[in-house]
Amino acid sequence: MGTPAHFPLILILIISSVSAQTLIQMLPHRPQRTGDGDLFCDSWRLSVETNNAGPWMTIPAECVAFVEEYVNGDRYASDSAVVAGDSLAFARTARIAGDGRDVWVFDIDETLLSNVPYYAVNGYGSEVFNDTSFDEWVLKARAPALSASLQLYEELQGLGFQMILLTGRAEAQRNATEENLLFSGYHSWKRLILREASDIGKTAVVYKSERRAELEAQGYRIYGSSGDQWSDLLGSPMATRSFKLPNPLYHIP
Amino acid sequence: MGTPAHFPLILILIISSVSAQTLIQMLPHRPQRTGDGDLFCDSWRLSVETNNAGPWMTIPAECVAFVEEYVNGDRYASDSAVVAGDSLAFARTARIAGDGRDVWVFDIDETLLSNVPYYAVNGYGSEVFNDTSFDEWVLKARAPALSASLQLYEELQGLGFQMILLTGRAEAQRNATEENLLFSGYHSWKRLILREASDIGKTAVVYKSERRAELEAQGYRIYGSSGDQWSDLLGSPMATRSFKLPNPLYHIP
Repeated sequence: MGTPAHFPLILILIISSVSAQTLIQMLPHRPQRTGDGDLFCDSWRLSVETNNAGPWMTIPAECVAFVEEYVNGDRYASDSAVVAGDSLAFARTARIAGDGRDVWVFDIDETLLSNVPYYAVNGYGSEVFNDTSFDEWVLKARAPALSASLQLYEELQGLGFQMILLTGRAEAQRNATEENLLFSGYHSWKRLILREASDIGKTAVVYKSERRAELEAQGYRIYGSSGDQWSDLLGSPMATRSFKLPNPLYHIP
Repeated sequence: MGTPAHFPLILILIISSVSAQTLIQMLPHRPQRTGDGDLFCDSWRLSVETNNAGPWMTIPAECVAFVEEYVNGDRYASDSAVVAGDSLAFARTARIAGDGRDVWVFDIDETLLSNVPYYAVNGYGSEVFNDTSFDEWVLKARAPALSASLQLYEELQGLGFQMILLTGRAEAQRNATEENLLFSGYHSWKRLILREASDIGKTAVVYKSERRAELEAQGYRIYGSSGDQWSDLLGSPMATRSFKLPNPLYHIP
């Protein structure tokens, strides 16, 4: 999902009075760490991935090492591969009309591209989002592909789907975004949709739902939608099936 | 969520041509097991909990030991406690009007009550659902409470919420269900809603959405909804916030 740079931070701050930290203090049965890994952080991650956690600004302070190990290890790769497998299994059941209107919508950040190299030097989600430094990273255009997503992207193209890229990144970042996508191996997308000036201040749910509605009005059939944030996927209209990729680093409302 | 006994099994069978088994065969990068636990089964569980997996009939054959260990171990308890913590943190932000119309909707099976003792002698989800033997288990009325849910239930009552229990169980099972709820420590629910004859054949999403719509039409404000199936939570109208409890044992569309 795109950069959270353009969201009303004051609103997030108000909402996040129910933040991860508060949540931890409120836990009725606080699970204990075990020798088997960090039980609490693993449950926290599940609550994030299922959208139970609600809005949050930073990961729990005690989960930095857990998140670091997760995003650099086998589990992130495995979880991403299984989501790609779910997506492909569904895609194979679709009847492609072949008129160029059968589309799959992909988010970009933490969906097609990985910003783990950025977060690795910025606290793995434990620091409040800094749009200045993140925008500098975006301009470098060197985010690697998430390999399971790149493979899925190519398999979907092979099935006859058109690729629509729908990102929270700003229109001003179009060139850097295109450069990065090509650098990391993506090609031949049908459209790359970025936030225009009139989208600034909209939540991702509103902005992305509006764009999906426009696509449908233009005759596109959105079979699948892939994103690492629930705000990539929820709202009306939705894709026939939505696929939530893992992301324990940040939350976008 | 209630027993899947009353769902159109033939439909499920057709839909589940994209079943867990098919999915596994289609995985582009099949993760390998590691000494660190079963990486694939853990990713499969995440895909179920995030609703990525889509319809499925039985758990992957290779994940029986994984699921057995999960539901009997610390992780299920920890995951359940964190969901309860998420729910309570949100509930504390609600303004209770005090007119008896502020409600929280709970599913029953794998939400308030645990059927793990039944599944422990029925293959931990690896066997196709058997409504005859499950109905016998329901009539015994001895399912234990999920302890995190019981504590949450009482805390929500303490905050002034009214409890609405909305289950896929049939009206014919009302007495056994009430007996089981009281046996396991629940009390003072405002309403217990079960499937009536006219609901047989409806998916859980349709049946439960219709009941939520009726509740709203009667003036109830549904702040929260807790269920172990996405079909407990999705559909219109939805609660202000929905909370997905873990369940790797079975899927209800």
